[in-house]
Amino acid sequence: MKIFNFYTGLKIAVTALAITTCSAFATHPNLVITQSDVEKMRSALNQSGRFNDRYLELKQQVDQQLAFGIVVPLPKDGGGGYSHERHKKNYQLMYGAGIIYQLSQEQKYADFVRDMLLEYAALYPTLDVHPKRKVKSQNPGKLFWQSLNEAMWLVYTIQAYDLVVETLTDQDINDIEHKLLRPVALFLSQGQPSTFNKVHNHGTWATAGVGMAGYVLDEPQWVEKALYDLDKSGKGGFLKQLDMLFSPQGYYNEGPYYQRFALLPFVTFAQAIAHNEPERKIAHYRDGILLKAIDTTIQLSYNGLFFPINDAIKSKGIDTIELVHGVTVAYGLTGDTGYLDIAQQQGQIILSGDGLEVANALDEGLATPYQFRSVAFGDGSQGDEGALVIMRSKPNGEQALLFKPASQGLGHGHFDKLTWQFYDKGQEIVSDYGAARFLNVEAKFGGRYLPENNSYAKQTVAHNTVVVDEISHFNSDVKQGNKHAPTLNFFETSEYGSVSSGQINTAYEGVELERTLALVELKELGSTIAIDLYSVNASQPHQLDLPLHYKGQFIDSNFDLNTQSQQMTALGKKNGYQHLWLRAQARPEKGLAKVTWLNENGRFYTLSSLVNGEESFLFTQVGANDPNFNLRNEHGFIRRVKGVNRHQFISILEPHGEYNPSKEYTLVAQSRLSALSHTQQGELTLIELTVADKPYLIAINNNKGASKRSFKYKNQSYSLDGHLGVYLMTNI
Amino acid sequence: MKIFNFYTGLKIAVTALAITTCSAFATHPNLVITQSDVEKMRSALNQSGRFNDRYLELKQQVDQQLAFGIVVPLPKDGGGGYSHERHKKNYQLMYGAGIIYQLSQEQKYADFVRDMLLEYAALYPTLDVHPKRKVKSQNPGKLFWQSLNEAMWLVYTIQAYDLVVETLTDQDINDIEHKLLRPVALFLSQGQPSTFNKVHNHGTWATAGVGMAGYVLDEPQWVEKALYDLDKSGKGGFLKQLDMLFSPQGYYNEGPYYQRFALLPFVTFAQAIAHNEPERKIAHYRDGILLKAIDTTIQLSYNGLFFPINDAIKSKGIDTIELVHGVTVAYGLTGDTGYLDIAQQQGQIILSGDGLEVANALDEGLATPYQFRSVAFGDGSQGDEGALVIMRSKPNGEQALLFKPASQGLGHGHFDKLTWQFYDKGQEIVSDYGAARFLNVEAKFGGRYLPENNSYAKQTVAHNTVVVDEISHFNSDVKQGNKHAPTLNFFETSEYGSVSSGQINTAYEGVELERTLALVELKELGSTIAIDLYSVNASQPHQLDLPLHYKGQFIDSNFDLNTQSQQMTALGKKNGYQHLWLRAQARPEKGLAKVTWLNENGRFYTLSSLVNGEESFLFTQVGANDPNFNLRNEHGFIRRVKGVNRHQFISILEPHGEYNPSKEYTLVAQSRLSALSHTQQGELTLIELTVADKPYLIAINNNKGASKRSFKYKNQSYSLDGHLGVYLMTNI
Repeated sequence: MKIFNFYTGLKIAVTALAITTCSAFATHPNLVITQSDVEKMRSALNQSGRFNDRYLELKQQVDQQLAFGIVVPLPKDGGGGYSHERHKKNYQLMYGAGIIYQLSQEQKYADFVRDMLLEYAALYPTLDVHPKRKVKSQNPGKLFWQSLNEAMWLVYTIQAYDLVVETLTDQDINDIEHKLLRPVALFLSQGQPSTFNKVHNHGTWATAGVGMAGYVLDEPQWVEKALYDLDKSGKGGFLKQLDMLFSPQGYYNEGPYYQRFALLPFVTFAQAIAHNEPERKIAHYRDGILLKAIDTTIQLSYNGLFFPINDAIKSKGIDTIELVHGVTVAYGLTGDTGYLDIAQQQGQIILSGDGLEVANALDEGLATPYQFRSVAFGDGSQGDEGALVIMRSKPNGEQALLFKPASQGLGHGHFDKLTWQFYDKGQEIVSDYGAARFLNVEAKFGGRYLPENNSYAKQTVAHNTVVVDEISHFNSDVKQGNKHAPTLNFFETSEYGSVSSGQINTAYEGVELERTLALVELKELGSTIAIDLYSVNASQPHQLDLPLHYKGQFIDSNFDLNTQSQQMTALGKKNGYQHLWLRAQARPEKGLAKVTWLNENGRFYTLSSLVNGEESFLFTQVGANDPNFNLRNEHGFIRRVKGVNRHQFISILEPHGEYNPSKEYTLVAQSRLSALSHTQQGELTLIELTVADKPYLIAINNNKGASKRSFKYKNQSYSLDGHLGVYLMTNI
Repeated sequence: MKIFNFYTGLKIAVTALAITTCSAFATHPNLVITQSDVEKMRSALNQSGRFNDRYLELKQQVDQQLAFGIVVPLPKDGGGGYSHERHKKNYQLMYGAGIIYQLSQEQKYADFVRDMLLEYAALYPTLDVHPKRKVKSQNPGKLFWQSLNEAMWLVYTIQAYDLVVETLTDQDINDIEHKLLRPVALFLSQGQPSTFNKVHNHGTWATAGVGMAGYVLDEPQWVEKALYDLDKSGKGGFLKQLDMLFSPQGYYNEGPYYQRFALLPFVTFAQAIAHNEPERKIAHYRDGILLKAIDTTIQLSYNGLFFPINDAIKSKGIDTIELVHGVTVAYGLTGDTGYLDIAQQQGQIILSGDGLEVANALDEGLATPYQFRSVAFGDGSQGDEGALVIMRSKPNGEQALLFKPASQGLGHGHFDKLTWQFYDKGQEIVSDYGAARFLNVEAKFGGRYLPENNSYAKQTVAHNTVVVDEISHFNSDVKQGNKHAPTLNFFETSEYGSVSSGQINTAYEGVELERTLALVELKELGSTIAIDLYSVNASQPHQLDLPLHYKGQFIDSNFDLNTQSQQMTALGKKNGYQHLWLRAQARPEKGLAKVTWLNENGRFYTLSSLVNGEESFLFTQVGANDPNFNLRNEHGFIRRVKGVNRHQFISILEPHGEYNPSKEYTLVAQSRLSALSHTQQGELTLIELTVADKPYLIAINNNKGASKRSFKYKNQSYSLDGHLGVYLMTNI
């Protein structure tokens, strides 16, 4: 009821403001694209190249759309529905037509933007909140079911308006501003203070739209409110968002899928600020946090796709339009030719001043390889709420290991403390389900997150980390999760590879989870292995499950499977277990338990686990209790021990061999790991393993300081500088 | 025992022959590569380009191998094992080194071939049949577990020998020929008459090897035997194989997977014949059957991969080395620049005379698009044992429909009369399991065909065709299958699309199966649909199942699924049903029953079935009774009716829309087919359907002659010329 009362109030406010007109931030355009950009871009159209190609391409698209005429439907459908998609198309189209107007100087494009804006100006005052809004929602839109889309509409539309305003009559300006742009801006700011002030990506879109409207409509107070909260206290607003939503290294709390989404309003509004008020030095704000955020988004990708942590749709990658904008700006800011490598992979040129620079540099062949690195990205606004760790087998190497002693990541976070993922030869090997969602597919729960996103994808068992007593971390309570981040014990990358350790004692009461993961180069073999050491210490006995979700076809195990032949049943009743079919259940003997699978990349992978004879292996397939076939039927196995206070899961993931049925050969289809043992010398963890008949000793120093030291093993002396040492053993 | 006695006899024969030496077919080399080829190839090395690149690449590979030295292990392992792979590598290496010798004229390469041949000459006389041969096998090898590999060894090795023989001393020639090449040739001919004379691809490898040895070792009688059977009767041998193994259109009875495999010895031996005895006009034999066979192999591919009918490993495609040779020869024979398109996709250059021509033509950019066509490839040596039908949405179009009223295809054939497959946007949509096999993966049943190949992949229910009473066609009896081919009733391709009909009344006693499939262009919509009309007429009531195996994620059905939530059971006990989990079971109401899935190509597919309320839909997943996880867990649904004598399954497959989560839009996720009805006017089948609100009438004339005629439907007159008519209905 509060909302409805508020709208009545808003209409009065709008009327009261109807006298103001546009003037003081003077020249147009001056948001992302400036008058001086326009001049350079126009002259670039005299030569051929990527920029011109993109111009012609966009012009053709806009021409096609212009031929269809203007359609501004009554808001009716939710996400993915006709009116929703049409309004999305409209703002993109106005933005495109605005740019083409500026570049071609053909009046018809400006007229088109004008006419569409006038249609919206006629429609908007007649609208109540959207019929498909969520019940009890605090943030409905009018054109769209949620105000997030409305804010996006404003971010594009205000730029389109800025691009054509110089061609409009006073009457048109008056109609468009007072019946449309001002009401929308006010609806999104004072109309929804909780969203506008929220330190969250929805808030960023709103502040960006309203702030840019402030520049164009000459409302400096709107800009102040956008930057510092509606009450200008600095408790909310764009700068607070820059302070809080990224860690000092530019990592966004919700993970890369939402990071790239959040990036666009940050980048867009920041450019508008820089052009209108360079004295705010927005690019330098918080030690250049914007550039760090862009660069981190790139680093959080593998083979062009973002690492799918938390709610993430897996096909999203670096070619997403938000990151195209980001990379364009990053190159504009730095001139770093590594960004051109990414721009080349994106294959999309932005028609802007920076976009022209990128296009010219690519035309001149200036791109150099972008450097992917092994990094621990500190999480939380201070960077001290755990970390997201990425290890790569070498710079630009083919292997990547993700380790997640990161914080919860708000409502889109998954309950997967200390989980890991592994990638090789372009593919997922140890995988994460990502989000359960078919974006905008109406038949699949209206295109929204599926019920199975909560009941399966977010649950701990859907990830590669320990589940205690079949209950998810924090008992699946987001608030609890947000309160308690894991600790990053250490991270190191050296000539031997990378190693990291993290722990958390708040995921379960009275249970401490500690995991160390290492991506180790075995130089003599030219290969890499991953080492996983997972310790659980509890005050009471528990059942401990450690799932591993793998991508590929099961090939072999060195123990009997006891497969279910005639009948499969669901593994459990809740917390995600109800979605797992139990395919087979085994109890390997004490020693090395091996499971080998073949990925579609043509390589074999073996997980060798050091077991004590008390662990069961449960082979699972996703898909039980899934009445509408919403889930992908992926495979995994769970290592389970019961009634223990302490347990250590030790395993080695070993990529090996090649399956090439096209050329008809198969190489090294069997694991080459023949022995594995583990000892502890105080803070020193020693792993002895034999791979392809070569005996290796791997030492991990768990002391956070990890200064140079020496140690003895089997009567040999070794010296270790740092956290990780790899030694080929000789006299044995 | 017969085999062992025979070997004793063979050893005597070898000794008796030890006096002969090489002379009358004169010059060397003169098999695939001739002396005059060598001269041209040598001079080509003075210029840069693909040929030179390939030369340098092979030289580098050979150099690397030479550095390792010669390894000729004692035969020990089966397919995929060490000694097996080593001997395969060795013959390829000898062949490569022989070519590099001829091109570089560096003695060390010839010496390497000589030394390896001498090692083999020392080893071979000591060998008994291979320890890993199949029990009771009629065709064991000595170096390999089966003589097929031994024949392949000879095909390569005799060419390698031919390339270096000019450098050898008389003593070496004597050793190599009498201890190795002659014994191998005799072992593969008189030593295994049943294989050598067999009209089968194993026979082709044997005759090719022995025939080429005849040319090199100056044994014209070996050539005669290779061409005309050991007894020179013409009942077996290479020419009989050319007569019998291909249909008049060049279709190979076992399907493309074995066609490409069979191709290499045909192409290789044919070139040797052409070079040594041009008067045999082998390229013109049977109206140019060799070229037709090569071309048909290309036509039997989609998006670079062979259509996986019968025992086929799905990743095999046009870049297979056998077809690289084939395309090289086809271009040499015809100069058709369409073959260069394929050669370009193959990306591999053969170091031969024809290979040089291909390389030069590619360097000059002469490639033109290869034309894929809609064709009914007649099956059987006379082309009258049914047909394999390929329909394409347009030349080089993105859609392909395979219809299989083809004959059994011998031991590798599947029991899938009248099955179909559908492809779009590069992907399988309606799919075939292919073979159950992990080629050369020792852990998977020694890399051979898995037990599940017989128990599932070959069974009718694994395909998209009718199963009567849960029994496979011909009761899974290959002999019965080989006896009875389906009939191709008609095939036509026109501006409206393609249509074909086939039938068989021998797959089951007292049951006639008749199917008509059409790939229809709806020009006004710019889209294509597939129409499937499947009629079953039986003398007794039966249960009829029509499975559809689809690739993608289930999205929606317009009826309740009644999904199994807590437990899944196997659908049956035998004939493949024991490998299917029953995921859900539904009975849609009379009318249109729709099932929609989303393929990884980003397009949606809906199968709309016209049901009478008596059909059940059983949703299945492959994987029950699969103790070693040998099967891929693929999805399908089975339409089932019980206790009927006659039934017609009518359905429409409709590709629609686009799912693009990367760019965040989804278009037309729902089927646009809103009405479907079916009537019969004598031999005329009339389908009325409404797609995207457009009413279409589709007429299929089932009269084999199908001359021009007119008909009336809903008071409108239509004229039909041929088998297929598509009309946009107006006055309704």
